[in-house]
Amino acid sequence: MNYCSNCAAPVTSMIPKGDHRFRFVCSSCQTIFYHNPKVIAGCIVTYNDQILLCKRAIKPRLGLWTIPAGFLENDETSAEGAKRETFEESLASVENLELFCLYNIPHISQIYIIYRALMLKPEFSPTLESSEVSLFFEKDIPWENIAFPVVTAALQHYFRQRTAGKFEIVIDEIDKREPA
Amino acid sequence: MNYCSNCAAPVTSMIPKGDHRFRFVCSSCQTIFYHNPKVIAGCIVTYNDQILLCKRAIKPRLGLWTIPAGFLENDETSAEGAKRETFEESLASVENLELFCLYNIPHISQIYIIYRALMLKPEFSPTLESSEVSLFFEKDIPWENIAFPVVTAALQHYFRQRTAGKFEIVIDEIDKREPA
Repeated sequence: MNYCSNCAAPVTSMIPKGDHRFRFVCSSCQTIFYHNPKVIAGCIVTYNDQILLCKRAIKPRLGLWTIPAGFLENDETSAEGAKRETFEESLASVENLELFCLYNIPHISQIYIIYRALMLKPEFSPTLESSEVSLFFEKDIPWENIAFPVVTAALQHYFRQRTAGKFEIVIDEIDKREPA
Repeated sequence: MNYCSNCAAPVTSMIPKGDHRFRFVCSSCQTIFYHNPKVIAGCIVTYNDQILLCKRAIKPRLGLWTIPAGFLENDETSAEGAKRETFEESLASVENLELFCLYNIPHISQIYIIYRALMLKPEFSPTLESSEVSLFFEKDIPWENIAFPVVTAALQHYFRQRTAGKFEIVIDEIDKREPA
């Protein structure tokens, strides 16, 4: 950040009065700019015993597999965002969303909110964001080619819980922050 | 948003190619600016049978009571943020955080992540953000003077579950969006 988005004057990095963190502050109109973590909403989509995965057609992790997920938008709930992202990335319509994972990833300032969701009909397709979209049995999951550690973790929890016959919400974190 | 924070040129509101929403886009360097929901982390702090509430010394809702909570910062987990906000607003140190509520509030693009937390010693104090900090038995909660609907809802769930003798995670929303 170089300039104030309000008045176009240069910003400086400083700790505002009463605050405890460096913020960008406008040198002219004094507006303080806050940057906060982003929420990513997605779905573990099932059709019978199979899981829907998308092969990424975009960076980062181009060519690797993921569950459909993306940045939550303003004015939508996390479940709506998870459903929207699923449709945008795979053209799959999902129902019966149940919260499954809340993952904090503080080194990249992200929170993943992942739902279990049902695809009632096996209708899906590649999209601009996904070069392939496919259903996988557990034994066929491409574990070596999963795009993000949080996706691997969520899928492992999913299969473990499904085998155990009972789902419960996973609250966990993936924390690669440097020691202070 | 009027100007690009990267190069100070004017921004225009448009739907970028491949996108489906209006974004501010720089007329010169073409940077796209995304605005996403914010996460608020907080605690229902208990000391024995009592709950810690803070009387707001700042706007909005100046003079009304709330649980300690505030915007999650970059580089921290939601539990760390809940603990930090509790200390900043009440000087109370809390332990044993357990996720209690995930509340979507889409009309203000916020997600509340609320923990149950224990204060081991009754040490707390007013702060710059809280003109009073006090412990309340259930019968004394100032229900008519709670700052935010989500706080009322979380406290109601808390007391109902405590009475029932079993806590489980509340996933709910407060949705006052206008019909499309």
